[in-house]
Amino acid sequence: MVFSETILISPIFSGFQFSLREVDREDLEGHILAANEDEKVDGIIVYYPIFNSRQDQYLQQLIDVGKDVEGLSHRYVFNMYQNIRFLDEHKLQKSILPCTPLAIVKVLEYLKVYSTILPYGDRLFGHSVTIVNRSEVVGRPLAALLANDGASVYSVDVTGVQQYTRGEGIKKSRHDVVDKDGWTLEDCVPLSDVVISGVPGEDFKFPTRLLKEGAICINFSTEKNFGPEVKDKASIYVPAVGKVTIIVLLRNLLRIVENRKPLCNG
Amino acid sequence: MVFSETILISPIFSGFQFSLREVDREDLEGHILAANEDEKVDGIIVYYPIFNSRQDQYLQQLIDVGKDVEGLSHRYVFNMYQNIRFLDEHKLQKSILPCTPLAIVKVLEYLKVYSTILPYGDRLFGHSVTIVNRSEVVGRPLAALLANDGASVYSVDVTGVQQYTRGEGIKKSRHDVVDKDGWTLEDCVPLSDVVISGVPGEDFKFPTRLLKEGAICINFSTEKNFGPEVKDKASIYVPAVGKVTIIVLLRNLLRIVENRKPLCNG
Repeated sequence: MVFSETILISPIFSGFQFSLREVDREDLEGHILAANEDEKVDGIIVYYPIFNSRQDQYLQQLIDVGKDVEGLSHRYVFNMYQNIRFLDEHKLQKSILPCTPLAIVKVLEYLKVYSTILPYGDRLFGHSVTIVNRSEVVGRPLAALLANDGASVYSVDVTGVQQYTRGEGIKKSRHDVVDKDGWTLEDCVPLSDVVISGVPGEDFKFPTRLLKEGAICINFSTEKNFGPEVKDKASIYVPAVGKVTIIVLLRNLLRIVENRKPLCNG
Repeated sequence: MVFSETILISPIFSGFQFSLREVDREDLEGHILAANEDEKVDGIIVYYPIFNSRQDQYLQQLIDVGKDVEGLSHRYVFNMYQNIRFLDEHKLQKSILPCTPLAIVKVLEYLKVYSTILPYGDRLFGHSVTIVNRSEVVGRPLAALLANDGASVYSVDVTGVQQYTRGEGIKKSRHDVVDKDGWTLEDCVPLSDVVISGVPGEDFKFPTRLLKEGAICINFSTEKNFGPEVKDKASIYVPAVGKVTIIVLLRNLLRIVENRKPLCNG
């Protein structure tokens, strides 16, 4: 698979040992359980799809929470949607976030869209974001993450537009979601200072004419969702986030190793 | 006068010698010309209004360009509107900007509204700003400065709304101005992520209900243009900029002293 090969040859992996284990899919459950117990294994990645059915979600939940570098365990996913950022009451162990959504957060931090003037947790207040993609893997968790950080997020897919926010004055502790009946890209893109697109397939082209002048545009699809004319209207255009995603995977690995250390009780 | 007293007692002025000269207004012209020649004087401030007529503008233009800390000389004002940032072709001597507009620029830089990711001169691209005040002293120069830096600026006064921009994709080298016929605050405030108000008098209260969620609000009026409810809707509220204006005055003084040094020809 492309992703695994990318990781194997990437020089940023020096210092990390990565071993690719190819097993029969019927034996995978046993191999995951063995890796959970194996003290030489710090983190586990499973390359999906395997059965391409609900069974894949069952396999995801088999991975020990302490070795789940991809942040797909129910506990991590629950924390993400609920805006619970730590695993322990002393707020020393950070909950793990899924790699591609977190990579896009890191890109937005690098681009200074996150305001360091505002308190941690509210740093996207004042920003309106359109995300074209509402998959469970990237689009929906990303909408939740950005709304939990204070943004007003328009989540768009073929079924329509939803708005994710923490309400007026971001007074709520986590986001909620409202359907924007009858809304399309025509309604939400002109209001957005950040537009993130991740539509698979070559057929989709983002309608650049709708962009607010100077918007920040980020593509996370393997296809080019934005045409070359985006550069005339966007202030910043990020054509891909794959390399950041790999770095974030390493970060998650370091984080879960850190989290496994016993907490001080003093 | 309040401003002069503020400056005299301010501890930030240590290291600077400030002498207040009170003269009969009929003698002012001669005193300005003498100060222009006086080597012990680095910068000159005149407290207006004096005649409260066109004569005051005549007096402004008497001050030597090399001692004009307030940036009111025609050459500086021309450069500001034309987006000419340097006095010399080698771009070593920066042109002087008027204190209150520059103070508001510095506040916006501090608040990270200026994106350090974008090239110098384009760092407000993507931002929409409403300025309620179009005086020659603050509102209009400020609109020009922010539009020259890439913002889309709505300038509002009792006569209506004007938009200042560098055009699509900020391709123009300086801003131009279009009248937005029939527009009011109702039209431009909901589009603006920054709102700056400087309306004199107690009667004006900014209509907070129009604010975009999480907008940045700055007041430069001596009156409180924003009511206390602004804090529920703005992400950042700056109630006054007077102290920054004084610092900027000192900065301008240092700048003109620097500018008087002969340029290297090597």
